[in-house]
Amino acid sequence: MYSFKNDYSEGAHPRILNALLETNMEQVEGYGLDRYSLQAIEILKQRIKRNDIDIHFLSGGTQTNLTALSAFLRPHEAIVAANTGHILVHETGAIEATGHKIISVEVNDGKLRSEQVKTAVDIHGDEHMVKPRLVYISNPTEIGTIYTKGELEQLSRFCRENKLFLFMDGARLGSALCSEENDLTLADIGQLVDAFYIGGTKNGALLGEALVICNDRLKDDFRYHLKQRGAMLAKGKVLGIQFLELFRDDLFFDMARHANEMANLLRQEISGAGCQLLTDSPSNQLFPILPNYLIAKLQENYSFIVWEKIDEERSAIRLVTSWATRKEAVLAFIDDLKNSIAK
Amino acid sequence: MYSFKNDYSEGAHPRILNALLETNMEQVEGYGLDRYSLQAIEILKQRIKRNDIDIHFLSGGTQTNLTALSAFLRPHEAIVAANTGHILVHETGAIEATGHKIISVEVNDGKLRSEQVKTAVDIHGDEHMVKPRLVYISNPTEIGTIYTKGELEQLSRFCRENKLFLFMDGARLGSALCSEENDLTLADIGQLVDAFYIGGTKNGALLGEALVICNDRLKDDFRYHLKQRGAMLAKGKVLGIQFLELFRDDLFFDMARHANEMANLLRQEISGAGCQLLTDSPSNQLFPILPNYLIAKLQENYSFIVWEKIDEERSAIRLVTSWATRKEAVLAFIDDLKNSIAK
Amino acid sequence: MYSFKNDYSEGAHPRILNALLETNMEQVEGYGLDRYSLQAIEILKQRIKRNDIDIHFLSGGTQTNLTALSAFLRPHEAIVAANTGHILVHETGAIEATGHKIISVEVNDGKLRSEQVKTAVDIHGDEHMVKPRLVYISNPTEIGTIYTKGELEQLSRFCRENKLFLFMDGARLGSALCSEENDLTLADIGQLVDAFYIGGTKNGALLGEALVICNDRLKDDFRYHLKQRGAMLAKGKVLGIQFLELFRDDLFFDMARHANEMANLLRQEISGAGCQLLTDSPSNQLFPILPNYLIAKLQENYSFIVWEKIDEERSAIRLVTSWATRKEAVLAFIDDLKNSIAK
Amino acid sequence: MYSFKNDYSEGAHPRILNALLETNMEQVEGYGLDRYSLQAIEILKQRIKRNDIDIHFLSGGTQTNLTALSAFLRPHEAIVAANTGHILVHETGAIEATGHKIISVEVNDGKLRSEQVKTAVDIHGDEHMVKPRLVYISNPTEIGTIYTKGELEQLSRFCRENKLFLFMDGARLGSALCSEENDLTLADIGQLVDAFYIGGTKNGALLGEALVICNDRLKDDFRYHLKQRGAMLAKGKVLGIQFLELFRDDLFFDMARHANEMANLLRQEISGAGCQLLTDSPSNQLFPILPNYLIAKLQENYSFIVWEKIDEERSAIRLVTSWATRKEAVLAFIDDLKNSIAK
Repeated sequence: MYSFKNDYSEGAHPRILNALLETNMEQVEGYGLDRYSLQAIEILKQRIKRNDIDIHFLSGGTQTNLTALSAFLRPHEAIVAANTGHILVHETGAIEATGHKIISVEVNDGKLRSEQVKTAVDIHGDEHMVKPRLVYISNPTEIGTIYTKGELEQLSRFCRENKLFLFMDGARLGSALCSEENDLTLADIGQLVDAFYIGGTKNGALLGEALVICNDRLKDDFRYHLKQRGAMLAKGKVLGIQFLELFRDDLFFDMARHANEMANLLRQEISGAGCQLLTDSPSNQLFPILPNYLIAKLQENYSFIVWEKIDEERSAIRLVTSWATRKEAVLAFIDDLKNSIAK
Repeated sequence: MYSFKNDYSEGAHPRILNALLETNMEQVEGYGLDRYSLQAIEILKQRIKRNDIDIHFLSGGTQTNLTALSAFLRPHEAIVAANTGHILVHETGAIEATGHKIISVEVNDGKLRSEQVKTAVDIHGDEHMVKPRLVYISNPTEIGTIYTKGELEQLSRFCRENKLFLFMDGARLGSALCSEENDLTLADIGQLVDAFYIGGTKNGALLGEALVICNDRLKDDFRYHLKQRGAMLAKGKVLGIQFLELFRDDLFFDMARHANEMANLLRQEISGAGCQLLTDSPSNQLFPILPNYLIAKLQENYSFIVWEKIDEERSAIRLVTSWATRKEAVLAFIDDLKNSIAK
Repeated sequence: MYSFKNDYSEGAHPRILNALLETNMEQVEGYGLDRYSLQAIEILKQRIKRNDIDIHFLSGGTQTNLTALSAFLRPHEAIVAANTGHILVHETGAIEATGHKIISVEVNDGKLRSEQVKTAVDIHGDEHMVKPRLVYISNPTEIGTIYTKGELEQLSRFCRENKLFLFMDGARLGSALCSEENDLTLADIGQLVDAFYIGGTKNGALLGEALVICNDRLKDDFRYHLKQRGAMLAKGKVLGIQFLELFRDDLFFDMARHANEMANLLRQEISGAGCQLLTDSPSNQLFPILPNYLIAKLQENYSFIVWEKIDEERSAIRLVTSWATRKEAVLAFIDDLKNSIAK
Repeated sequence: MYSFKNDYSEGAHPRILNALLETNMEQVEGYGLDRYSLQAIEILKQRIKRNDIDIHFLSGGTQTNLTALSAFLRPHEAIVAANTGHILVHETGAIEATGHKIISVEVNDGKLRSEQVKTAVDIHGDEHMVKPRLVYISNPTEIGTIYTKGELEQLSRFCRENKLFLFMDGARLGSALCSEENDLTLADIGQLVDAFYIGGTKNGALLGEALVICNDRLKDDFRYHLKQRGAMLAKGKVLGIQFLELFRDDLFFDMARHANEMANLLRQEISGAGCQLLTDSPSNQLFPILPNYLIAKLQENYSFIVWEKIDEERSAIRLVTSWATRKEAVLAFIDDLKNSIAK
């Protein structure tokens, strides 16, 4: 049984574990003030090409979202997100638990556009409604699509003109940045958004996300929020060492590139076999629409999520690749799929 | 510079890292449902000698406290804690941030007793005040003291008679259980409290705490709370594998025992050198009272926390030992201390 | 300028003020424990035909909703509401501010049906999503429609079968109960929902809502929640005296009936004049669709809310009547409307 | 049975009810935007001698405290209060329910002084602890003492130097301002604090508190917070009309003066009869220490609160006077007390 279920079904890249091993017996400062974390922050600043940003390491995506957004907003301020947004759907109300409403905007492709945000903002006119204050986007989105530089620029401009913070959830940012269709850089993102995070968990780390705060107004006292939300690890070096290893050369990007290549291979062959895809997702998630009999057949040897029912005879499934996805497994999957269709 | 500053200045026990390495390339379920986590839970149940308990792995102490206590209480219910309680002092209001008041009870030795809890409960008589509902204790306490079985039994009895939940913060539980003065077992604790946690971070893990829920009434839907508070790691196996390694034999206890031995050595020699101790702490923290000139001298080669001013000439310092504390470092510290006094 | 803008633009019924005057110089217990509040509770129990219910008086609708729903739910539990629901749209995120997500269900007529609730519940399958636990409905709805007994029975049955609490926002309940199309009684509601409230503010009181808790599981310690949310008035008798006056005879219903009659008159004549209505609302709100020129003309002498744009030439307006709406004003409005159309 | 139990056991001053009656049949704007509320705000600005302040009317003290303090603070920021502070003791954790910790400072006379605040601030040094940001005082305090102008100036200076907001709970402010020992004016307070409120409920209104926000940084979007916390009455005029009546001439002060005179009379005569007072309280609360037999005797004809046990034979009781306290009742109480002692 091979799993295409998720990119967190795998372990960490061996270099990550090695880095933890090599530094293991040193005594260091706690709570993220160790030399490795500080060094990782410096290297990330170089990658993002800004020195005037704050960077904090957290353990997971939900934790990062809830800690950041609750720190950034006053009680009556709300978040605007696409209806597919992770914070809206799959975080068990973590944001609402900190007191903030999320305004859902219906979109087709997982991406928010300024016109849609404008509509949401316009209907919130007075103090009987929450005040939209932050726009949450994911890149790649939850359905695998990615933002172009032009799209992000437009959204960024709109947000700045309308006193809205722009926040990018980058749980799978590596995959977006290494997509063939991508024209964004870390440096671009650092200029266009007010805060974002770079996901480690889903790209070869044991755990860890790097939150980048670009807007000065959002920086004050952030470590208090880390602590208050339970996000400040005593052995903070566990996160810093990993991000240092991920970014001291191109490991982070190499792993994302591999994941994308495996996804591309799947995509081409599945399309080639005559199957449609639910979304146009140039990243490490794809959503082929398959006949139910074929899904049942594939489930004998592969695990994956059945995403949604299309009609009586077909469903979309989700396949996710990762830094660790083996090419042989991909090829075997393709073979099995083609053979099963053939019959 | 050798550090006695904390037990989280160190890395993980090499066996922990090995266990992570050996299991690294397997694909497993996410979110703590992997085979290692499940196995770790089984082993812990055997240690605690109860099958009817729920166990969850979280990343750190503050996270465990805030997730558990907010899950256990209704909005108007409050927590009773010693004035030294970690949740009261050193968690940046994490509990209050979930909406609950902590009632502080003045104690001398870090330990709560039923008479003191009774007083606190008695003055909360009606709906104009919060309703005390949960008693929070730490074992060992924040100043290194530990609960005897008799003390815990008495407190437990009082709590049950008064419809109060009893929760034990076990961030350093290993050290308490391995103390020479201890007469409590994991199984005792599992009978006497409603929930407690076993700290991994401060006893040789990279990170991780095992929350044990003994009372049926507190179990329902706990995984929702894990997720909502950002405490459910995607690669949950990172925690499970560590606890499996800690408890599949006596590694957890061996490490705590070593830490205690190093603390005992420090304690005996420092006392022998004529210095008083601030508290009677038979665990891995000790609080010697030293002349300020001696503290300054020791700070040249050792890092530790100056805990509190005693008088114009003396202060108490805090020394913490761990699984990784080297005996040579302890002996060197003692030598330096004696030599400096001698002069 | 005559206002059809709202039912809270008016004062209280003179009998309400008289009741406050007559009892003014007596010394009574504070915090809602005075004899008038207790008597009002007894009378309401008779009206609802249940003795085993708890009743509390609060100041306003948002306060009642947030106090009740946050008392009833655990942190991970969510509310299901129609997309028009007051708590979703017009309470500035008051519910989310207490930590709970509201799941929005798209409906046409403001009313939730069990199939729709089922769909919402079904997609919330695990701990990565909130747990639907309470269904919020308004009667009448925010667009003036009302629930039939059959509809409420069906919804109630579904909720009980699915462990969902059913809560009815009755800010304008008087108008629903006195509608010509209504077949529900207070006693029916008391049997079918877990909690509801009877709105005083919008039906002739100075301020005040009576929250009725029918389900035993929701009753415990409710006064603590009243106090904690700032909803317990020191001079609680101000609310109790008003509800006593409203329900010691039929004042509450007489006032609602008058409001409905005025609305019916408007409805018939506006329909008769050939104008459509946006919703079929047999209560004290109506939403005629008028040409924009006509709206502008009417605005010279009447104030009301322009509810939504229909097309380039027409908009829906909202007209609200109350216990205090004068028939002459209604007739004058109708005349003006007809005359303006005629031209 | 005559009650000295509280100043909210009474109704409203007849002029208040008259004002409600006279304006009852007018149609006005809702939500506090009616002409009476606006006029009351203008008059209060004149009294406070500042035009650049914002004023909002709320229903009660707890509501005002929780709405204001949660609007003013970020999640990690805490409040410093005297251990007797109403928000600490008697509001069912209302502030903590909005997420904020209150740091308790032990005081003797209910009053906070800058040295004590400094000590509390000094021990909160880093992000592992909450960040003190707002100092909460009550005037008069919960035990009847009042602040002198000098004391308030000193506290104000300290707060401004240390970036702390200063907030005054004025639930009984009228009594403080009309005390013979008082040297503060409303205008002084408006200069020295960042926000405060003027209590109506305990000084002759049916209900209502006027929150005054002096510091520009605390003003933004406050009406959103009013709405979110359930504090914005639909018929907001109910509060505005009362404050207009209280302050359009000296009614507010006349009522407070009467309450104080009655308290003074009680104080002098009780002292004259040889009984001690627990606190030096020159306002409308007093705390005589009486033999238990005498308390029992007095309880036959008067209701009051037994405040605290002094020793085996004596307890302190609390007597509260109000605008409505009848002199004959005071004299009768004194007679009864003297007669009972005599025997």
